[in-house]
Amino acid sequence: MNSKFIVIEGLEGAGKTTARDAVVAVLAQHGISDVVFTREPGGTPLAEKLRDLIKQGIEGEQVTDKAELLMLYAARVQLVDTVIKPALARGAWVVGDRHDLSSQAYQGGGRGLDRQLMNALRDTALADFAPDLTLYLDVTPEIGLQRARARGALDRIEQESLNFFVRTRDRYLELAAADPRIKTIDATQNIEQVTTSLQSVLRQWLAEQA
Amino acid sequence: MNSKFIVIEGLEGAGKTTARDAVVAVLAQHGISDVVFTREPGGTPLAEKLRDLIKQGIEGEQVTDKAELLMLYAARVQLVDTVIKPALARGAWVVGDRHDLSSQAYQGGGRGLDRQLMNALRDTALADFAPDLTLYLDVTPEIGLQRARARGALDRIEQESLNFFVRTRDRYLELAAADPRIKTIDATQNIEQVTTSLQSVLRQWLAEQA
Ligand SMILES: Nc1ncnc2c1ncn2[C@@H]1O[C@H](COP(=O)(O)OP(=O)(O)OP(=O)(O)O)[C@@H](O)[C@H]1O
Ligand SMILES: Nc1ncnc2c1ncn2[C@@H]1O[C@H](COP(=O)(O)OP(=O)(O)OP(=O)(O)O)[C@@H](O)[C@H]1O
Ligand SMILES: [Mg+2]
Ligand SMILES: [Mg+2]
Repeated sequence: MNSKFIVIEGLEGAGKTTARDAVVAVLAQHGISDVVFTREPGGTPLAEKLRDLIKQGIEGEQVTDKAELLMLYAARVQLVDTVIKPALARGAWVVGDRHDLSSQAYQGGGRGLDRQLMNALRDTALADFAPDLTLYLDVTPEIGLQRARARGALDRIEQESLNFFVRTRDRYLELAAADPRIKTIDATQNIEQVTTSLQSVLRQWLAEQA
Repeated sequence: MNSKFIVIEGLEGAGKTTARDAVVAVLAQHGISDVVFTREPGGTPLAEKLRDLIKQGIEGEQVTDKAELLMLYAARVQLVDTVIKPALARGAWVVGDRHDLSSQAYQGGGRGLDRQLMNALRDTALADFAPDLTLYLDVTPEIGLQRARARGALDRIEQESLNFFVRTRDRYLELAAADPRIKTIDATQNIEQVTTSLQSVLRQWLAEQA
């Protein structure tokens, strides 16, 4: 099987980082052990600097929605061109903690940026590059934020209003329903149940690729 | 007269910063004293952080051309929306040290990024926002870099090859020739001569606006 780019998506506290090990375990069972991990925004030294600017903001300055979006794409393009594409080219699999769908959901849905603007920017920045499979962990904002809060202090994005996350989740669900390469997993269940659902979806998908 | 956005453009060492005082003097003669200065990339705390990333790069990491371009637009959008537009709205004039034409010339011409990509990104980021007048100080790269070098150490962009700056200047000249809102000034002359040319062009333009 050709190497693939698999992305894990979802709200804060949905369980993305937790899900990574479950993905890796299934890949290992299929003899796939050369796996590169990425996270977004970030994943290269430059992109991590941009992540800090995006996550922390600047004391006393309001970051505009468009500037935030452009920084996210700068980080994403740098990661795609210097890490993800080279890894795929040499035959490694890539497992990403967030990718473009996060921008579509958070900046498009949450912030309410214009769809045409979102699409134009994605096309300009990424052309037709896209994940082979996206595992979307669906939780209500209440559950996700509760899990994230239990884990530590919330950053600039995590401090957004509940409505922001409701809009973000709605956009996730809408886009997932419209794209067969995005699989929705009920992540309100307990960790064992989520792991079981996720692994079964992934096994099924791998079988279809063979 | 309504407030205007005037931009000074040109290669490194063309004399942009030097030209600012000449512009301000003419504006003052026309009774315009509420003037906001900007520089790009930069001009807000966030945009200055991006400027540092763009100018210094990251030790050991190759910044891709597209990531550079997207960082430039993130900085520009933040500056336009939080500084330039509010200043113009309250009736101040804005004098900019570089603006979008720099990206067209350096990233489009110098780096050779696709014109369609450049235009799509500009339209997405800025819509129809544009300077009322651009004063383009035209020098050969040899003269500009000599002046810049005499002034101090060269940054990541200034260390590009001579060919890079030749392509950049060619794009500047091409775009200036095609747009009546861009005035080309021969900046290979001495400072007094450049100042005289620049001020005469500006006076003429102001007369046409009245
Ligand atoms: N299904 C689950 N049920 C209960 N708790 C969970 C579940 N999945 C993850 N958690 C816990 O919730 C917290 C957040 O999980 P995790 O870090 O995996 O989420 P995340 O989606 O990566 O969050 P972030 O977007 O902030 O990185 C962790 O403490 C994790 O142990
Ligand atoms: N017409 C000129 N003839 C000779 N020297 C000049 C002329 N104009 C400016 N200089 C000198 O060249 C140097 C660069 O000028 P200046 O800083 O104004 O250029 P700049 O376009 O702002 O450069 P940069 O793009 O690096 O900011 C300064 O030392 C300045 O005094
Ligand atoms: Mg995580
Ligand atoms: Mg200068």
